[in-house]
Order: sequence, then structure tokens, then C-alpha cells
Amino acid sequence: MSKKMNMILFSGDYDKALAALILANSARELGIDVSMFFAFWGLFLLRDPQKISEENKTSYEKMFSMVSPKGPENLPLSKMNFSGLGKILLKEMMKDDEAPPLEAFLSGARKKGVNFYGCKLSMEVMGLKKDELIDEVKVIDAKGYLKDAIDSEIQLFI
Amino acid sequence: MSKKMNMILFSGDYDKALAALILANSARELGIDVSMFFAFWGLFLLRDPQKISEENKTSYEKMFSMVSPKGPENLPLSKMNFSGLGKILLKEMMKDDEAPPLEAFLSGARKKGVNFYGCKLSMEVMGLKKDELIDEVKVIDAKGYLKDAIDSEIQLFI
Amino acid sequence: MSKKMNMILFSGDYDKALAALILANSARELGIDVSMFFAFWGLFLLRDPQKISEENKTSYEKMFSMVSPKGPENLPLSKMNFSGLGKILLKEMMKDDEAPPLEAFLSGARKKGVNFYGCKLSMEVMGLKKDELIDEVKVIDAKGYLKDAIDSEIQLFI
Repeated sequence: MSKKMNMILFSGDYDKALAALILANSARELGIDVSMFFAFWGLFLLRDPQKISEENKTSYEKMFSMVSPKGPENLPLSKMNFSGLGKILLKEMMKDDEAPPLEAFLSGARKKGVNFYGCKLSMEVMGLKKDELIDEVKVIDAKGYLKDAIDSEIQLFI
Repeated sequence: MSKKMNMILFSGDYDKALAALILANSARELGIDVSMFFAFWGLFLLRDPQKISEENKTSYEKMFSMVSPKGPENLPLSKMNFSGLGKILLKEMMKDDEAPPLEAFLSGARKKGVNFYGCKLSMEVMGLKKDELIDEVKVIDAKGYLKDAIDSEIQLFI
Repeated sequence: MSKKMNMILFSGDYDKALAALILANSARELGIDVSMFFAFWGLFLLRDPQKISEENKTSYEKMFSMVSPKGPENLPLSKMNFSGLGKILLKEMMKDDEAPPLEAFLSGARKKGVNFYGCKLSMEVMGLKKDELIDEVKVIDAKGYLKDAIDSEIQLFI
């Protein structure tokens, strides 16, 4: 039976999402099964910028939707963000090294069969609908996460 | 023998504490044993607002006690805190969805038999006394944590 | 066969690095093998302040090198940093309790045979050269990390 890695992506930071997706892609290349459970700010990574909708949202949810990142490339850095300057610097350095941007790692993970799970409670609280997210996402609750994590060889909270 | 989950709560953020306690409650409902080891900022979650004392504290420890959160509902958000506005927004959205606040998840975890451990070194450095914390807390050191974690199926650093 | 703990140190925060190194030292004292994989901001902990060089760096890399911490004692706090005031307070409280500073825990970990790994991709992107880091560091990629982590009893993302 193949081995499994399970990650919670709780953070909505560009650099942490990058780390998580690099691990996910590398694990798949080694034949390791990968589950990613997106909770709270992590859900912003799964937002499809083409599909954001204000329908059926309370005014709090609309306000929240307005001030929060619209997709992978809009996430801030966890450190030295300097109002976005730090991220520009990081992206320029990545380009110099021909390292692909976050979106490329996300699309790699989708192609390589990473399992994407969205946290039900977080989505309800934030007013995020399933059809605002990328297609692969399955919505599960904390118990669903635990059942997957307990059978995994590696668990990380990112 | 039942399975076990071990979490270090290092962060003192409202949203991360919420995530940790939701996992703890859900794990107990699945019959999984849960150990939570509170270190550094995470210890603020265990402060009993009724029992804060300035006795036997150095002046640095008093200053620290003064500027740090007084209990669960006073913790800030890890992201988009906007001087507290973001947290008000999150709590209003949670109320709309009838999701209980942090204190309710903490009291649920206490009733469901989650094991609460306080990090000895952190408490000494911060000048936090055992009797300022909720009753269930046992004080252990890093080796105590490691012995518990190494026998667990899931370990997370939050 | 002895048990193993694997930690990714992604964060460049003084307090989180302290937590990771206290765990590393304690684990070694219990006879547990320890691997630490330093990625992104975590790499700043391994910078040897005596060996920082601007040679063979692009202008972006030079700018980045200039604004980033020069070694362990220059890392900021993850919370309540207050432009450095919070860290002074923490260090004074640690001194009162005769707790050694971060550098002492780092040198303890080096003496106790902790395995130090630097993330290849992070180093390339940030323009950090192997000879700017402490001697023990071996440079590996994400797959190298995964192979080490999957055989460990404990994995943490810090």
C-alpha cells in the first residue's frame, strides 16, 4: 500500500502556500498520496478569480469577500511583505532562477492528483461557496480530516 | 488501544486556537485521545481571567503580564486583525452561522477529557504561575512533550 | 532502531526557532535522532554572521541580503515584537531565569549531533550560498526532506 502525506493549509500566506505545494508536487513524484485540507485563510488559495460571486451572502460576508485575497497570486507574504514590495522582490528572485510562480505549482498539484479538501465550517463562516473554488475541491468536516490524517505517515499544519 | 493526537499550541492567535480546539473536540468525538501542549503565546489561552495575579513577579514579568492577552476571548487574529476589527467581523460571521465562540470550544474540550499540558520553561520565562491557569493544566517539560508525541498517530505544531 | 524526529523550520522568528531548538536538544538527550530542514526564512538562523558575502549575487539578492536578519540573535519575534522592544523584554526575562539565549541552544544542537539540512530551492531563490551558512549544513531538495520525514515518528512544520 502506498504511503500518504496529509497537510492542513491554514495559512493564507504566499510563501507558506508555496512551501506546501512544492511538498505536494514532490511527494506525488515520489509516488506518495497527498491530501491537502484547506481551512480558514488557506481557502483563499483555492478561490477561482473567475468565479467570485456576491450572491446569497450576508453583508458581513460581502465585506469579508471584498477585503480578502482573490486567488493564489494575490496572497501576501508571511514576513517582510513591506506592503507588497517584499513579494515583488521574492517573485523577481524566483524568476531569475526560473522557479515557477505559485499558480504553476497549484496547477501541477491538480494535474498530479493531489486530493483537495475544503473545511466545511470555515467555508460556512466565511460565506465561501463551493462553486467559487477550483473544481477539484471536496468539502469535508474536521472529522473527515482526522480520519484521513490518522492513516497518513506525515501530517503537517502549515 | 486507542489512537492519539498530540498538538503543540505555540501560537496565541484566536483563529489558530479555534482550529486547534475544533480538532481536539472532533477527535474526542471519534474516540481519539488528545494531548495539547501549550507553549509560549499559546499559554494565554489557558489564562483564567478571574485568577490573574501580580504576586511574586519581577517587574519585567509584570510588564509582560500587563501587555499580553488576559484569556481566550482577548486573543488577536493571525491575519487581517485590523486592530481588532477583523476579529469582530469573524465573530459576527460565526454568530450568523451559529458557530460557538472560542470559549465554548475550550469548555467542550475540558468536558471531553482533552489532556492540557503547560510548558514548564515558557511558564518560568513569562512568569506565569500554575494557579493563574485553568485547573486541568499539568505542567511538563519538553521531554514530557516528546514522550507523549512520539507515541501519537498525529502530531501538529500550531 | 532508534526513533526519529523531523522538523521543517520555515519561520524566521526568534521565538519559533527557540522552540524548535529546545525540542531538538531535548530529543537528542532522550536518544531520539533529529533532522531539521531549514526552508525560506528559517535559513536565516543558519547564517554565520562572520561569513556573509555579496559575491556572485544579483542586485535583487544583494538587496534581500541587506534587509534580512544576519544570524540567530537578529531574528524578530513572531508576536509583540514592538520594533524589537518585545524581544528585549523576552531576553531579559530569560536571563532572569538563567535560560540560555538562542545561540546557546543552536550550539547545543550542533554538539549533540542534530542533522542540519538547507532547502536547495530556497537557497537558490534567496541567493544564499552554502559557505555563508554554518559548517554542518547539508543542502538537499524537497524530495530529500520527504524521504527523511516519512521514516520519522514525529514531523512538525514550524
